[in-house]
Amino acid sequence: MIETPYLLFLGDAPDQLAVKVAQGIKDWRPENAVGQFRLEGCKADLGLADMTLREAKAAGAKTLVIGVANRGGVISKAWKKVLVTALEEGFDLASGLHNLLRDEPDLVAVAEATGRSLHDVRVPEVDYPIANGVKRSGKRCLAVGTDCSVGKMYTALAMDREMQARGMKATFRSTGQTGILITGDGVPLDAVVADFMAGAVEWLTPDNDPDHWDLIEGQGSLFHVSYSGVTMALIHGGQPDALILAHEPTREHMRGLPGYSLPGLEALRDMALTMARVANPACEVVAISVNTQAMSEDEAVAYLAETEARMGLPATDPFRFGAGKLVDALAAMG
Amino acid sequence: MIETPYLLFLGDAPDQLAVKVAQGIKDWRPENAVGQFRLEGCKADLGLADMTLREAKAAGAKTLVIGVANRGGVISKAWKKVLVTALEEGFDLASGLHNLLRDEPDLVAVAEATGRSLHDVRVPEVDYPIANGVKRSGKRCLAVGTDCSVGKMYTALAMDREMQARGMKATFRSTGQTGILITGDGVPLDAVVADFMAGAVEWLTPDNDPDHWDLIEGQGSLFHVSYSGVTMALIHGGQPDALILAHEPTREHMRGLPGYSLPGLEALRDMALTMARVANPACEVVAISVNTQAMSEDEAVAYLAETEARMGLPATDPFRFGAGKLVDALAAMG
Repeated sequence: MIETPYLLFLGDAPDQLAVKVAQGIKDWRPENAVGQFRLEGCKADLGLADMTLREAKAAGAKTLVIGVANRGGVISKAWKKVLVTALEEGFDLASGLHNLLRDEPDLVAVAEATGRSLHDVRVPEVDYPIANGVKRSGKRCLAVGTDCSVGKMYTALAMDREMQARGMKATFRSTGQTGILITGDGVPLDAVVADFMAGAVEWLTPDNDPDHWDLIEGQGSLFHVSYSGVTMALIHGGQPDALILAHEPTREHMRGLPGYSLPGLEALRDMALTMARVANPACEVVAISVNTQAMSEDEAVAYLAETEARMGLPATDPFRFGAGKLVDALAAMG
Repeated sequence: MIETPYLLFLGDAPDQLAVKVAQGIKDWRPENAVGQFRLEGCKADLGLADMTLREAKAAGAKTLVIGVANRGGVISKAWKKVLVTALEEGFDLASGLHNLLRDEPDLVAVAEATGRSLHDVRVPEVDYPIANGVKRSGKRCLAVGTDCSVGKMYTALAMDREMQARGMKATFRSTGQTGILITGDGVPLDAVVADFMAGAVEWLTPDNDPDHWDLIEGQGSLFHVSYSGVTMALIHGGQPDALILAHEPTREHMRGLPGYSLPGLEALRDMALTMARVANPACEVVAISVNTQAMSEDEAVAYLAETEARMGLPATDPFRFGAGKLVDALAAMG
């Protein structure tokens, strides 16, 4: 569990794309973002107040989050100076970088001396159990995709926001590094040892109120040969009551797999539902979330209408048109 | 890669069941088993020559394999003395125990001083790649089960033996600790980090001659909620040409999961084949391997005949009736 709120470290980011983790925190948990810290030459700007470490500390920030991708996998000297000073001034550090904070001896030494924590969110910090398959109270929703990176995390976050606004009981449950930094906790599922994947998802989504929804962040795709095992563990460990199909209609092949075409929504529905009902016989496919960013608005509207008619399910793009239809589908389950 | 042949350490095994790893080595790779080493009070016997470390060394043994489960998860003093002496006399050590050789400081110190290796086969020793899904040459066969522990490893080993006897090109590819100790190499798939599972299976089953068969050891079951992700990674990483359905007809619920009933062979066939064809559109389900050990011979024969008629596929119990039918099914694929 990472202590919030954060000061967002943007470093010397060459462009706005390099700070997408920080952008996600600011977009989805603005209350977690006290301000931003930029080095000379930083080309990114979140529109937050620029703060020194002292100012951020005074404003209540607990953790300096590295919200920028570093270049060449190296934590530069310019960064290091800020990170060390942050530890000395009482901040914890959190990072989703491939090269780990805990592998930097100077950071480890200062963190130990000052009693601060280094959070590498790519590395599991819990000994997860083996899944036991016991039915849990409360309700769970999982987005499953025709491919990786079709908007599953966005869908769950947008539904969470809409459900909070409606006064429904809901919790976004993160299973990836960006989501963990956004909310401050979760399971880095792709880094969990195989035998414990489904158990980690059970651990993440425990018993809850009967009318509470866990919105579980999806990963991979049953049809993506590199990561399908992770998706399967989400379906069986999450024992979802509701599945949402996620799709990007213009993609020409599976992400990173030339020669592999995307499955149809029908194939995804049949496969995911059959597998989900092993763990939860009451599971239903309730809606479709389409990433229409490569389409004009007219094309998107037409595609969604055609998809609704063909699949007999509500379909929307939560980024473009809001998550209302998706939340309506959950609410209709009672 | 563990150096063969072995001296099999049976320790102070309380009964024959406790040495089933050693029994597997002796049954399936007798040429790897130079002899057995027993401590006072050992109640197990493989029928191999009892040897001192010196005698085994003289007979060519390279590695002392711990072929017995230890009690209480502790490597006892009585064992330790033999293990240390073995390292000093030039043996490597190999173990599938939960408590690792590498966590024993005295063994590590002696291994370093003598230049010997400690092989903990539960721990991956390779940095596996992420799966790329590229089609590989050669053929692959995978057994998929209605449940865990229905005879998938046995099926693959029995087919391997039959194919060697027929002069066919075949390699048993181990994905679990027992199989790794039997053959000396493989991938401990349940201990691999999630993102690399399918890549580990690709690594294990590389390009080969067009008429060569990899017989991949199956794990878990698509229908077992604790381990289905591992099974999925085998199906997509292994890109099998041939699937064999494995089943134990008398089991009352999924192993370790009271309340979860076993799927039918039809459901397993449909699910596994659909998923396998994502990676290899030419994949076929070719035969059924039934574990009939809880049935009389008459019952077994009747069950197999009924299953063949119902499924339209050859069915046998390779332990009871040999693997000939299963190998015939591969041979018929050309």
